[in-house]
Amino acid sequence: MNELTIALQDGQPLYEQIYAFIKEAIIHGEIPFKTKLPSTRTLALHLQVSRSTVNLAYEQLMSEGYIESIAGSGYYVAEIEELLSIKKQSNNPNPLIHKKETKHYDYDFSPRGIDLSSFPYHTWKKISKEVLTDVEKELLAIGDPQGELELRYAIVNYLYSARGVRCEPEQMIIGAGNEYLLILLHQLLGISAKIAIETPTYKQAYRVLSSLGHQIKTIEMDSYGMRMDQLEESGCNAAYVMPSHQYPTGIVMSIKRRLELLAWTKQAPNRYIIEDDYDSEFRYKGKPIPALQGIDQNETVVYLGTFSRSIAPAIRISYMVLPKPLLKLYQERFSFYASTVSRIDQEIVTRFLSEGYYERHLNKMKALYRSKHDFLLNALKPLMKGFRISGEHAGMHLLLTAKKKLKEQKLIDLAEAYGVKVYGMSSNEIGEQKKEPATIILGYANITECEIEQGVQKLLEAWKEYL
Amino acid sequence: MNELTIALQDGQPLYEQIYAFIKEAIIHGEIPFKTKLPSTRTLALHLQVSRSTVNLAYEQLMSEGYIESIAGSGYYVAEIEELLSIKKQSNNPNPLIHKKETKHYDYDFSPRGIDLSSFPYHTWKKISKEVLTDVEKELLAIGDPQGELELRYAIVNYLYSARGVRCEPEQMIIGAGNEYLLILLHQLLGISAKIAIETPTYKQAYRVLSSLGHQIKTIEMDSYGMRMDQLEESGCNAAYVMPSHQYPTGIVMSIKRRLELLAWTKQAPNRYIIEDDYDSEFRYKGKPIPALQGIDQNETVVYLGTFSRSIAPAIRISYMVLPKPLLKLYQERFSFYASTVSRIDQEIVTRFLSEGYYERHLNKMKALYRSKHDFLLNALKPLMKGFRISGEHAGMHLLLTAKKKLKEQKLIDLAEAYGVKVYGMSSNEIGEQKKEPATIILGYANITECEIEQGVQKLLEAWKEYL
Repeated sequence: MNELTIALQDGQPLYEQIYAFIKEAIIHGEIPFKTKLPSTRTLALHLQVSRSTVNLAYEQLMSEGYIESIAGSGYYVAEIEELLSIKKQSNNPNPLIHKKETKHYDYDFSPRGIDLSSFPYHTWKKISKEVLTDVEKELLAIGDPQGELELRYAIVNYLYSARGVRCEPEQMIIGAGNEYLLILLHQLLGISAKIAIETPTYKQAYRVLSSLGHQIKTIEMDSYGMRMDQLEESGCNAAYVMPSHQYPTGIVMSIKRRLELLAWTKQAPNRYIIEDDYDSEFRYKGKPIPALQGIDQNETVVYLGTFSRSIAPAIRISYMVLPKPLLKLYQERFSFYASTVSRIDQEIVTRFLSEGYYERHLNKMKALYRSKHDFLLNALKPLMKGFRISGEHAGMHLLLTAKKKLKEQKLIDLAEAYGVKVYGMSSNEIGEQKKEPATIILGYANITECEIEQGVQKLLEAWKEYL
Repeated sequence: MNELTIALQDGQPLYEQIYAFIKEAIIHGEIPFKTKLPSTRTLALHLQVSRSTVNLAYEQLMSEGYIESIAGSGYYVAEIEELLSIKKQSNNPNPLIHKKETKHYDYDFSPRGIDLSSFPYHTWKKISKEVLTDVEKELLAIGDPQGELELRYAIVNYLYSARGVRCEPEQMIIGAGNEYLLILLHQLLGISAKIAIETPTYKQAYRVLSSLGHQIKTIEMDSYGMRMDQLEESGCNAAYVMPSHQYPTGIVMSIKRRLELLAWTKQAPNRYIIEDDYDSEFRYKGKPIPALQGIDQNETVVYLGTFSRSIAPAIRISYMVLPKPLLKLYQERFSFYASTVSRIDQEIVTRFLSEGYYERHLNKMKALYRSKHDFLLNALKPLMKGFRISGEHAGMHLLLTAKKKLKEQKLIDLAEAYGVKVYGMSSNEIGEQKKEPATIILGYANITECEIEQGVQKLLEAWKEYL
């Protein structure tokens, strides 16, 4: 081939146009394999462009492997059988899977949400802007894999005074959400770890651990917490619990059960307790229940906490305290994982904690949730003929259990017909769902007192046959 | 027990002092198990506090399980054998594992760093402050598990025009770093997936995939990329590659090899290519090599990209494009994972991209790195008697291979003696390290031209016996 006529246009670099023309011609078989291309000099003259322009186009074609240069001979189209199969691609003719539309409710007693209307916007913006003003090289470079030391110090101090957690900053790992930290823990425990989980439970932890391939044994609870007899029979070597405020039952694990659980870890090597302390800041009667981690003398408790509920869900910062054997393993084998949290965000939270804003914010939220809690308890009084309440005085939800024998789904459907979204206890159960008395979860964090009043009024109408 | 004398002090709430006193007395055996406590009325009178104060203390003790209430009889200390083992805990007598000190070098040719002195501080702060001003409820609530749609749109548009990637925003998942996305991919591929990885390679990906339990087969490269014969013999069903610019060799996978690799995926079900396109923005000769994903017609390429190198390492935002079979699996089974990236950060990057700043920033960085690249190439000329260069004209590093037979570590040690940190190729190899010609990696992103000049001068002295 001695000539190649290419209609060059304005706008795009000339070498790119030459490159694209030849590439397309090769792909579509218009220039057959092994064809010798015109020399750069010939083509440059023919197209009236500089030789370096043609050179650049040829080099690009070479680096992508469309043409080859044979020393002393020239440029040849490479032999690429598979090219014949490349067709112009359509723009995705197959529709992609789309998400379900979410239904709208007038009143949503979600146990998941938090009250974001009381988020300290002003303070947060002020601190963020201060941090941004200070942003320079350091905050943009790769940080400590465990999270910045200052943030770990601030959290350790908070946990010691507020939760009775005893640890050093070196034991703490900051991560982008509890789920990420559970993934890390999964690697520390090893795939063969068999994990005991209460039922009902916080389903998300169950989903993460089971989808990572762990064998899970579900353990029932009595009024003191996870049943020890079932745990001992389970053959598990790790137990996932929420001792300070079990989700969703609201059960506080008694000191006796805590000590039994700790004693269980001593009966065999490599036994661990995973303590998820997800919302224990919020207790409206007495003071918060101290963490189980604080009385562990055997280095067997992994402590998990998060700012998702106490600050905001979109602040993706959680923390995990490792007992020393797991810390050693982490530092030896897993500290290659880079931190998943931006250093700017870490710095903002560090200042929020260490300048006293977090404590003030928590106090404000506690008062707010307590008020909603009391308001809901009061509003529910007319329902007491047909239901009893449990799990109150803490957290952001309570439970309504029907006295009559009836289906949970029936209660949910009736509420829905009146525009009220309520949640069934059984959706938090693992495995076979109990036929037990129907139990409804009512969350009150993300709903106003006015909505609580109106929503409960609707529930009274919806469920009147059961009252 | 009819009396309990407690020295109440100012400062702490009275109920807390009563609670703490009784709790400590129970723990230390000063009040034996099953002891009946004074009634709330008696204790209130005795301590001269209100009855509700004592009530609160007793309720707290009950909720933690230290005492029990027996109806009609009163309050009793619970029976907790294990309590006897609780001692006052010392403040961590065992020293924790501490990190190694990092050595200081005068000149560091790290291939990992990027040039942060050219980060668009002004623009970034401006956008961040704009986003912060707009922060309200929505940005703090839980977001889309795949990442915000606006950000995915912006990235998809960028990838289409800059990298030839063809996908819909629905196929994209945003995550806090490549490692997190690899963990997600691990779950999509399943633990039994056997993964082919080139050697030498980007060791971090190898570490993640192997520590998650995957069987890894290392595959050698020829000058076109991963060797197909070895891949076919490997029994693998996934291949991790960096076709546009292999790390650390700098090899560009030829179009022929790309098509062979795609053809390989068709030979058996569930075969996937993991394309890590980590730094292909940076090419100093011709135009960037288009992504392999763009010519995949069989929905077998998983495309991974990151802003760690193109914006900043501390910006923990990466993205993964899933082919439709894996997307379906993700949506059915793994979309329960909450996003690991803060929505505020996502919004900042969205605006950075869609307002054209990213493109401008990339152009600036490309010019900057090209200049450093050219400068380094020029400075290295006197070394050419003893070394040859490869992997140049792209990325942020190049390779120096010794012509004489000598140990790589020797070169590194000699450089270190002159205050220069250089990196050995063999640290990127998996398994047995080749005895091959010693090869040194010289990164130039995070070092000034002045330092390049002086650093190379030191290398000339350090390595003079090999020149």
